[in-house]
Formats: sequence, C-alpha cells, structure tokens
Amino acid sequence: MGHPYAPADLELPGFVPLQLSQSQILVTYIGTSLFVVLAVWLISGRCGRLSKIDRLLMCWWAFTGLTHIMIEGPFVFTPNFFEKENPNFFDEVWKEYSKGDSRYVARDAATVTVEGITAVLEGPASLLAVYAIASRKSYSHILQFSVCLGQLYGCLVYFITAYLDGFNFWASPFYFWAYFIGANSSWVVIPTLIAMRSWKKICGAFQAEKVKTK
Amino acid sequence: MGHPYAPADLELPGFVPLQLSQSQILVTYIGTSLFVVLAVWLISGRCGRLSKIDRLLMCWWAFTGLTHIMIEGPFVFTPNFFEKENPNFFDEVWKEYSKGDSRYVARDAATVTVEGITAVLEGPASLLAVYAIASRKSYSHILQFSVCLGQLYGCLVYFITAYLDGFNFWASPFYFWAYFIGANSSWVVIPTLIAMRSWKKICGAFQAEKVKTK
Repeated sequence: MGHPYAPADLELPGFVPLQLSQSQILVTYIGTSLFVVLAVWLISGRCGRLSKIDRLLMCWWAFTGLTHIMIEGPFVFTPNFFEKENPNFFDEVWKEYSKGDSRYVARDAATVTVEGITAVLEGPASLLAVYAIASRKSYSHILQFSVCLGQLYGCLVYFITAYLDGFNFWASPFYFWAYFIGANSSWVVIPTLIAMRSWKKICGAFQAEKVKTK
Repeated sequence: MGHPYAPADLELPGFVPLQLSQSQILVTYIGTSLFVVLAVWLISGRCGRLSKIDRLLMCWWAFTGLTHIMIEGPFVFTPNFFEKENPNFFDEVWKEYSKGDSRYVARDAATVTVEGITAVLEGPASLLAVYAIASRKSYSHILQFSVCLGQLYGCLVYFITAYLDGFNFWASPFYFWAYFIGANSSWVVIPTLIAMRSWKKICGAFQAEKVKTK
C-alpha cells in the first residue's frame, strides 16, 4: 500500500492511511495546549509573589513537559503506530508529522533515541520545573538549565543526523518548513533564552556569595 | 579486501589494514595523557589557594578536553580515515577502536553527530573549565555542569542507538568489554560525579543568597 512520505522507496508494509485531517490534529493539539497554558497562568496568579516572568516560565514548562510525555512518549513506546487498524490521536499525530520527517515512521534509531530521552527524562523534569519555580526551590535554575541543555542537545542530534543521512525526509518544501523547521524551532529558541537566563542567575548567585564572604 | 570488524558483511572498499599494534596505540595515548595530567597537577600546585579537588578537576578537564579535540576531532573531520595509504596515529586509533564499535568505520550518522558535538563544543569548553577553575570564575560550576551533561547525553545517545541498531558492532566479547564498555565508562562515571557536585554547589549558592537577603 502506498504512503505519503519521502523518500518514495521507503518500505512501510501494513501502513494504514491517515484518518484525521491536518487541521483536526492541529486544532486539538493547539487548543489543548492553550487550555494548559491559560490554566497554569491563572493558577500561578493566585500563588502570590510570583513575577510575570516566573509565571510565563511555568506555562512553558507545563506545556513542554506535557508535550514530551503525552505526545512524544506514545511515539517512543508504540513502534507499530503507523500500521494500527484503529489508530488513536497520538498515532495520527506521528503519521502526520512524518510528512515532515519520515525517520519517525521509519523508526530511525537516532530519532527514537532523542525522543526517548526527551519523553522519559526531560518530560518529568519539565513538570518538576513548574513545581520548583512555584515553590522557589534552590534547584530551580539548575533544573531549568539542565532541561534546556537536554532539549538543545536533542535538537542538535536531530538536525545533524538528518543532514548526514541525506536530508531528504520531507514530502514537500511545505512540510520541510512547517514541520521539520517550524514545529521544532520553539525548542531551539525558547531553551536558548531560558538557558542564558539561568546561566546568568547562577553566576549572579556565586558573585553574591563572593561579595558576602569578603 | 577483508577487515577485522563486525558484522562481517560490512562493506569497506579501500580499507587499509592497521599498521600499529594495540599496545603501540595504547601506550602512546595513555603515556601522553599521564604527561598532561602530571603537568597540570604540578602547575596547578603553584597557583596557590587551589584545593586538591580543584586541582584534580583541572587534570580531568585538561585530559578530557584534549581527548575530545585531538582524538575525537580528527575522526569527525576525516571521513576516509580507514582508506588512507599513509595513515597517521589518529587514523590508526579509530581503526583500532572500531573493533569495539564498527559504526565508527561505517560512519554511522548518530556516532559521527555525537563525536562532532563532543569535539567542537565540549572539547573547547573542557579546556575553558581548566582556566575557570584556576581563576575561580563565577561561571566555573555551571560550565563544568554543562560539559558533564553534554557528555552524559552523548553517552546515552551512543549506547541507546547501538542497542536499537542491533547491538552487533564488536569483533568479539573482548572488544565489547574493553572498548565499547571499558573505554567509555570513564565518561559516564566521572561526569556523573562532577555534575552532582556542581549541582550541589549551585544549590548551595542560592541557599546562601536566600539566607543573606533574609
């Protein structure tokens, strides 16, 4: 049976065509994400003494943590997602996303590895960051920095392996820009910004300590 | 021409057999490394006020930084190392190590990617850590933590992709244990220990800051 992915000679025995449309998938994902972000924003406003930046960070960590666990987790642990007769929403997400990177449906080892580390380690750590910011833990900045560095390392591996393996995994330029580049760009830009902020805060804490002990 | 790597059906047209023995390679690498470690230990002893742990850390960062740049760097930027008619020491290192993991000689994308990130980013950052410790920079701990996290993420990708791709890349159990496990184990154990130490130091700096502002 044919499939919509590139390269065309990719073998996918048992492939079951997509049943949800792109807009059904996007509206569900973006709608749920906006609901999560709004809920965290409102609840964090009642915690008292939290700055607007901290509340925004909590929204981001809740969104990215749930994406890692709920969206990327099922991909990692469902190797046969593209051949299921009764696919669920998450199977359909990855059949759609694979139009931008067929290594997902082809189960490329580097892609599965990065997604596995992201889902299993960075997902729970992101949710812990929501709690750490709210309760002003002393490990809040180093935890956020760790997850950001993991996300950035993952993106590097993801993009460099795509380049080394031929850079021909998208069904069209639209899917290259919208999925391969567009959908991943938030996980390059935002972790870079947060990592820079945490780095500065951590250096500041050591400078304060130095001044104090003088 | 035949090659000593596994799996046996791996195609390596133009492979030039090893000219150095295992002991020649090991003695050169270990000898040079001991020389570097000894030199850093002695020089750091004259810097004054540096604790023994800081001096040991400087030795480690000098050793690991030079290994990343001088040993792993040439691998990344010499795709044809196994077919060179006049191989240099570094080509021979990787032809020998490939007995423990033929993905090196086969130019596996995930392996090249991890080695590239290690050589280009973590190598120079490790040498910067030597300087940062010696001059007690406020970014010393977060820099060391960053490199450790990168090394650990790299090891995770390295081992998990080997598992997913079939776990059959060593010429014999000896090379599996000595090279694939043994040679890499230092970069699992030592970065874990340093990362834990830096994490604690960073949390301690924020706790001190909190106490101070009370």
